[in-house]
Amino acid sequence: MHAMQLESYQQTHNGSGPALAARLACRGGAVRGSTAGIAPGYVQGNLAILPQDLATDFLRFCQRNPKPCPLIGLSDPGDPRLPALGEDLDIRTDLAGYRVWRDGEIVDEPADVLAWWRDDLVAFVLGCSFSFEEALTAEEIPLRHVEEGVRVPMYRTNIDCAPAGRFSGKLVVSMRPLRPADAIRAVQITSRFPAVHGAPVHIGLPQAIGIADIAQPDYGDPVTVRDDELPVFWACGVTPQSVIAAVKPPFAITHQPGSMLVTDIPNRRLAAF
Amino acid sequence: MHAMQLESYQQTHNGSGPALAARLACRGGAVRGSTAGIAPGYVQGNLAILPQDLATDFLRFCQRNPKPCPLIGLSDPGDPRLPALGEDLDIRTDLAGYRVWRDGEIVDEPADVLAWWRDDLVAFVLGCSFSFEEALTAEEIPLRHVEEGVRVPMYRTNIDCAPAGRFSGKLVVSMRPLRPADAIRAVQITSRFPAVHGAPVHIGLPQAIGIADIAQPDYGDPVTVRDDELPVFWACGVTPQSVIAAVKPPFAITHQPGSMLVTDIPNRRLAAF
Repeated sequence: MHAMQLESYQQTHNGSGPALAARLACRGGAVRGSTAGIAPGYVQGNLAILPQDLATDFLRFCQRNPKPCPLIGLSDPGDPRLPALGEDLDIRTDLAGYRVWRDGEIVDEPADVLAWWRDDLVAFVLGCSFSFEEALTAEEIPLRHVEEGVRVPMYRTNIDCAPAGRFSGKLVVSMRPLRPADAIRAVQITSRFPAVHGAPVHIGLPQAIGIADIAQPDYGDPVTVRDDELPVFWACGVTPQSVIAAVKPPFAITHQPGSMLVTDIPNRRLAAF
Repeated sequence: MHAMQLESYQQTHNGSGPALAARLACRGGAVRGSTAGIAPGYVQGNLAILPQDLATDFLRFCQRNPKPCPLIGLSDPGDPRLPALGEDLDIRTDLAGYRVWRDGEIVDEPADVLAWWRDDLVAFVLGCSFSFEEALTAEEIPLRHVEEGVRVPMYRTNIDCAPAGRFSGKLVVSMRPLRPADAIRAVQITSRFPAVHGAPVHIGLPQAIGIADIAQPDYGDPVTVRDDELPVFWACGVTPQSVIAAVKPPFAITHQPGSMLVTDIPNRRLAAF
């Protein structure tokens, strides 16, 4: 996050909105790394790009696994624009970092994917926990990874995603430790946001979902869990990257974890009730 | 519960509805003890009756403690009718059992309170967990105390109710052990029913709310809590009786625990969304 640089972009692009300003800042190279805290109030999204011959399977995978893979945007084949998600949006340039995958291995981590673009690529944008974390913070539910200044801890579970064609794999979850009354409130708050992972999938008993050691996350960083808290687990948008690493499709593009697509959709518009 | 006798009452009172039939069965003495399972689909209520000079304090107590004391009906002073809650309803006769209290002690447990009625009495009817248990069962969330054929376990916690005038005391909770995913679903389901205790108040860490031994409830019966389950705690309508026992008002009438007022209100009408 480069707040000063982003601010100067926002001043240059008066009236275009903070989300567009954030995308242009990414496009211009002024923002690299995490987009956490950029353009508050706007939905950010996980990205998965696949060749059209795999896209139908992946679309079915998302439909069958709406908690880890809540689909909020889908491009036409070969078209880098997603006008429903943002003005002047170009999926090839508007994220702060990309990963290019061949056969399940990362082969490039470029600032844009113009050189990798193909006419058969389909872009999937999936809701991200930043939206529900904003809702939790607005209701004064404390977020330990934010307090401790680290990435949220994420774990590969023993829970199978519903398979679809070539795609299958284990559910990845993010964890936030909460006092019991806050955990109950967090279930209520995040239930209102099914498009950004919705309610937790598990609470309190990590061993029951195959997490042997809460202090050793598979992605992100460990955080303190106090004696008067329960670990609360949400389905995580890293699940598709874990699935891509396991299924090894010939070609795929994803975002760099934490470097999300900033959309023009207000978070509040995703509230189901 | 005397299903055969109730059935004969329902046949006698064709068209008057199962809730009125249940009240007439109580009035006539055909139903004694628990009203669990009687008139499925209709709201049942906890009862507290107080002299008018205490009623304003207790009304404020209910307003400040909506989770244990969700007020669904309130009589005019001296009037035993609550037409908003039921056709031909007489609060003095239509429950399956009463407790009469003097100075915090139970002095009578009559089948009706006609002999105890006074022109200054005000009746409070408070929502009851039977309604949300019906919603949980409809969504296939298992209820251990029902499976084991016992009363739900209830515990006096270390959580203070918000005081109001002469009324103060500790929150009483009921406990249902659930697997974590069912617990999350139960939060969602019961959140829809704020008029019958709403969402749980605690989950997973009984010691944190002053419960030393989950196997030793203060009211009701113990139930099995399995290794893959969390105890989930809801605010309980026994709280007013615990408060009356502690505060010792000169005079009060309550229902016998489990012998609730059957109302004409459909459970589904209480759903907030």
